[in-house]
Amino acid sequence: MADAHSAGPLAGTTIIENASFIAGPSACLGLAKLGAQVIRIDPLGGGPDSDRWPVDPCGTSIYWHTLNRGKRSVALDLRSDTGRRLAMDLITAPGTGGGILVENGAARRHLDDALLRERRADLIHVGVTGRADGAPAVDYTVNAATGVPGLTGPADSERPVNHVLPAWDLLCGQAVVSAVLLGLLRRATTGRGSFETIALEDVALSAVADLGWYTEALAADRPRHGNHLFGTFGTDFATADGRHIMVTAITVRQWRGLVEATGRGDVVTALAQALEADFEAEDQRYAHRAVLEAVFAPWFAQRTCAQACAALGETGALFAPYATAAEAAAAWPSTPVLDRVEHSAAGPLITGASPIRVDGAYLRADAPVRLGADTRSVLAERLGLTAAELDDLAAQGVIA
Amino acid sequence: MADAHSAGPLAGTTIIENASFIAGPSACLGLAKLGAQVIRIDPLGGGPDSDRWPVDPCGTSIYWHTLNRGKRSVALDLRSDTGRRLAMDLITAPGTGGGILVENGAARRHLDDALLRERRADLIHVGVTGRADGAPAVDYTVNAATGVPGLTGPADSERPVNHVLPAWDLLCGQAVVSAVLLGLLRRATTGRGSFETIALEDVALSAVADLGWYTEALAADRPRHGNHLFGTFGTDFATADGRHIMVTAITVRQWRGLVEATGRGDVVTALAQALEADFEAEDQRYAHRAVLEAVFAPWFAQRTCAQACAALGETGALFAPYATAAEAAAAWPSTPVLDRVEHSAAGPLITGASPIRVDGAYLRADAPVRLGADTRSVLAERLGLTAAELDDLAAQGVIA
Repeated sequence: MADAHSAGPLAGTTIIENASFIAGPSACLGLAKLGAQVIRIDPLGGGPDSDRWPVDPCGTSIYWHTLNRGKRSVALDLRSDTGRRLAMDLITAPGTGGGILVENGAARRHLDDALLRERRADLIHVGVTGRADGAPAVDYTVNAATGVPGLTGPADSERPVNHVLPAWDLLCGQAVVSAVLLGLLRRATTGRGSFETIALEDVALSAVADLGWYTEALAADRPRHGNHLFGTFGTDFATADGRHIMVTAITVRQWRGLVEATGRGDVVTALAQALEADFEAEDQRYAHRAVLEAVFAPWFAQRTCAQACAALGETGALFAPYATAAEAAAAWPSTPVLDRVEHSAAGPLITGASPIRVDGAYLRADAPVRLGADTRSVLAERLGLTAAELDDLAAQGVIA
Repeated sequence: MADAHSAGPLAGTTIIENASFIAGPSACLGLAKLGAQVIRIDPLGGGPDSDRWPVDPCGTSIYWHTLNRGKRSVALDLRSDTGRRLAMDLITAPGTGGGILVENGAARRHLDDALLRERRADLIHVGVTGRADGAPAVDYTVNAATGVPGLTGPADSERPVNHVLPAWDLLCGQAVVSAVLLGLLRRATTGRGSFETIALEDVALSAVADLGWYTEALAADRPRHGNHLFGTFGTDFATADGRHIMVTAITVRQWRGLVEATGRGDVVTALAQALEADFEAEDQRYAHRAVLEAVFAPWFAQRTCAQACAALGETGALFAPYATAAEAAAAWPSTPVLDRVEHSAAGPLITGASPIRVDGAYLRADAPVRLGADTRSVLAERLGLTAAELDDLAAQGVIA
């Protein structure tokens, strides 16, 4: 396992993170995996997400400790002038690899780009907002605005169906990673800083638009159709042992694999003739998805999940049995991108490596984080504060 | 509107894309918006996704033309030695801003990193695979493996519920953007090239792990609970006019806003006393989500969507009415990140700008793409081929 902080491609880079919830913290975790040193600025006592679920049996947030691991934490009273000044000092501290800020609190004075840039002209500043005009929004409200919940879930749903995955937060976080790297590239090639802003809502709307779904919807809204793939064939099948398998037949090869594995060639051929359909064309597999599902379903229902997967695996069909989260978690020893990390305030954690493998290597940043644990060491290292000055700040209540 | 190709931060960069489906093409579209020139290498007649749905009434793929706009397309017979050699020539052509490849066909000879790197040592090569070992996988099969479909959808679902959004593909695409930028940064600072690989399955598993969900699942699988937020309060409410509003009360301020707007303060207080609950604590709002939903639901049911939104908007509640995709699309004139682009093979398209705003500006790449339309011009410009040589390639069937 690589020691990302010394060996990753961003070694020598220091990022100040003043962000909560998923977008900013997931971005900086990703940057930490790539070798950056990340210093969180936390409010004393923690930010709005420091107790977020899932929590362990003692109420410690598994979420917060997982998403912020591999980072140092400086806790400051950001309601005080002194606390805000220290935050600005940290953000604009000199050093070639520093002067990089990720935040989601644009309205706050200590994050004002003009004020910060006066202190450090080559600042790389990436700000996340909910909506493009700075108004608040979260994954759930943004998702409602996209139209996607109307396409998701069982065909007979009367309510919109939210995806549980915070997909927009995660996608926004990955855009923040790109924005930081873009800033670093600009600084490396021109010496100049940059101010980039990303609205969660823009991330969502532009992503859906770029799939062509809004152009499609100008003509008509697409009906909801459960787990069926749109425009081709794929759906889930139940097996004799109560499990489910997702099967896709997007390409002709995958389609032939499914037909061969299930031994339904004769039925499919007869059906194609009777319906005057060519199932080698994906749009016709889509048009006849219900009858095709019904043709294959009994084969799955008569087999265990293991039996069905073994047969499908021999013919080039593309499929995956559905796992529960517990099953995915339990498989960590045989899943290279996952690891189990001891020694955290929240107990052993299952963590992910950077999915960007550099020369084949998985990069990780798994050192435990503890709220405010690095306040004194960071202020001493980065700002040169003495023990007496730190004691004075503690006496004022600016640091704990 | 900025002309991204001349003004974006990646102006002067040329990326060769040999990729299909969503991850690679969405990545290169994002890079085109940031100012890169993107040259697609397409197989003659188009790749496996060139007819993908949604399609227009003539069967032209809205999907393909939206996701690949802003790019040039070179169509080659990649089954021929000459076609593959031309592809390798394009990928490794000299020039400071070139030598950048995004692909999802790792097994193919013309994309072999060692062979390409012999020709251009500073190559930036980003390869996307389904699984980390190179085995095929798509968004749907990867999603089945994550455990997320078991958490998604109505509480009484007996089947897994897939999200319709290709979230993993999009997230993988954004990771590809980061990988390309990381490669550019490395080349700018060291002169060296890089080979980065990203597996769709790794993107998904690491993202879920980093939310803490697998650590949580080591103890027990979370029950499915419809549109309710996990660990705090938020759900959708139906209004008198048959619409739905997503309301979140993640912070105390949002919670108080919801209580105030609905005038349910007395009921909530009485309920808190009777249940010995403190609804200012988000975990208790979560524990009592069903009764809280029932307390607020009548208020929404007695009001139109507009009336409810007006009242919620005055109190700091966080909410969004659900829109259909058609409504989101129709709102493009008042949605700055969206635009309507004429002159495409697939008719007018609704397109998204880069959600990364640089100094506040939305960057776009909306020039129409046409399969193979740039074959001759690109081969002439980048490889110096003469008209006679191009005619000869056409006679051989290597180009159209």
